[in-house]
Amino acid sequence: MSRQVGVIGLGAMGLGVARSLLRAGFRVHACDVRESVLDAFAAEGGMRCATPAELGAHCEVVVTLVVNAAQTESVLFGEHGAVAAMRPGAVVISSATVAPEFAAQLGARVEAAGLLMLDAPVSGGAARAASGEMTMMTSGPAAAYAACEDVLAAMAGKVYRLGETYGAGSKVKIINQLLAGVHIAAAAEAMALGLREGVDPDALYDVITHSAGNSWMFENRVPHILNGDYTPLSAVDIFVKDLGLVLDTARASKFPLPLSAAAHQMFMNASSSGHGGEDDAAVVKIFPGITLPAGR
Amino acid sequence: MSRQVGVIGLGAMGLGVARSLLRAGFRVHACDVRESVLDAFAAEGGMRCATPAELGAHCEVVVTLVVNAAQTESVLFGEHGAVAAMRPGAVVISSATVAPEFAAQLGARVEAAGLLMLDAPVSGGAARAASGEMTMMTSGPAAAYAACEDVLAAMAGKVYRLGETYGAGSKVKIINQLLAGVHIAAAAEAMALGLREGVDPDALYDVITHSAGNSWMFENRVPHILNGDYTPLSAVDIFVKDLGLVLDTARASKFPLPLSAAAHQMFMNASSSGHGGEDDAAVVKIFPGITLPAGR
Repeated sequence: MSRQVGVIGLGAMGLGVARSLLRAGFRVHACDVRESVLDAFAAEGGMRCATPAELGAHCEVVVTLVVNAAQTESVLFGEHGAVAAMRPGAVVISSATVAPEFAAQLGARVEAAGLLMLDAPVSGGAARAASGEMTMMTSGPAAAYAACEDVLAAMAGKVYRLGETYGAGSKVKIINQLLAGVHIAAAAEAMALGLREGVDPDALYDVITHSAGNSWMFENRVPHILNGDYTPLSAVDIFVKDLGLVLDTARASKFPLPLSAAAHQMFMNASSSGHGGEDDAAVVKIFPGITLPAGR
Repeated sequence: MSRQVGVIGLGAMGLGVARSLLRAGFRVHACDVRESVLDAFAAEGGMRCATPAELGAHCEVVVTLVVNAAQTESVLFGEHGAVAAMRPGAVVISSATVAPEFAAQLGARVEAAGLLMLDAPVSGGAARAASGEMTMMTSGPAAAYAACEDVLAAMAGKVYRLGETYGAGSKVKIINQLLAGVHIAAAAEAMALGLREGVDPDALYDVITHSAGNSWMFENRVPHILNGDYTPLSAVDIFVKDLGLVLDTARASKFPLPLSAAAHQMFMNASSSGHGGEDDAAVVKIFPGITLPAGR
């Protein structure tokens, strides 16, 4: 009989994970506040649950892929939360991007409830989530890995194991977000200067992606600017949040992060200017005195 | 009979170019302030010249690969400069990283002297210079390209042609340097936070280079930090200069560049702290309260 697994949060990443788990032969239960998404997933063979508690009662492994720490707290420990309903020895895979300190506390509380947990944030975007090829930055006890190896294998192309300590996975994830956020803001700044100086933006993209100034984010996000398409794949407000987590973590030990702080201000400028729900490449809209490429 | 070409400036990049030209069958004249470098190049089959003027008198094509605009000015138009000695229709390939405005003025002056010029900064590092596989960001008149196509082919794996206007090549080059400088500083900031948080730096490098936080510079420079080896391949002071050119260019049109400004401050901090001649990865040394990996 198929293993019963659950996914809480069917956003861009969660839906891809849920589909990857279905494809791998699991019986997949899902929970989301949006009924329409659950309807669509049920039509593909998934099982819809009314609450995280209902989902938790069915599942040996529960993946939480909600937006932040507050939602993770709510779906696990809030009213109708999953943890109280899960059977002893079941595993929570906590995959939202959260502060390392929160992940550490969460692990202790999940263990105290007689369950296992992995601190397991993900990277790679919606396309890799859908193909089961995400990168996972994980930490937790060996027993937790042993109880969900098949689930990890179905979700991820690469699972980094970063030790036994809850929070170690989240530390590496927020450092990835530090770089990702600074690189998106730098890509916007570079394209903005090019436009100000009258450089052809398509030629600039071609040169940079073949030069030492390239980054994963430059290559991935600048086409949104060139196409004038700010449909959110990942929104400006995600980096307001994630660079905020980076800065909160460093502030706890009074550690200076000059570039992260500058990039965070740029994303907050974009958000306050009304672009918070647009694609994160819309941070380029904070630059004055330039005309951005129109939609193609 | 072989074409006569010259290289002024046998630094990390210039020496590689001179050797690539030798290998391609050109008769290569070279000029440098350091006698020992000229001796070594002569032993490989190159021709040494006492002054840029002596070199210019021999050559149909002259590549300048000196450190900055002041040196470019000096070797072309200073005492014993090359331009006055070159024959009508000969070509100057100006490859130092300079302000676009300087490149534009230089092109006009070289033309006024009856010569041709390409604004032609390079990217790719010493290894690619040595193998003749640099990226070149070029602009200038069609006649200049026609007169040195064979030389460009021997120097570069990829020659981007960015229009007829002198300065267009240099604009793209400084935008590349904007990104390169910000990415090196961001790599340092990310590794510093990881060390502060007790993350294993080798594991962090492994994860980031397989994640969305990666950049060309992160992948290339962080090993210097992991190995505790700050032998200069490209020095901190190069980015003090190059981000300075970026900021000067933007300031001329009162254009804000928050990340470039923050990164420039970081490289100046490193330089003032005594690390200006070390590898640019030494910008990580400005972060307090961490212990960097020792030399291996």
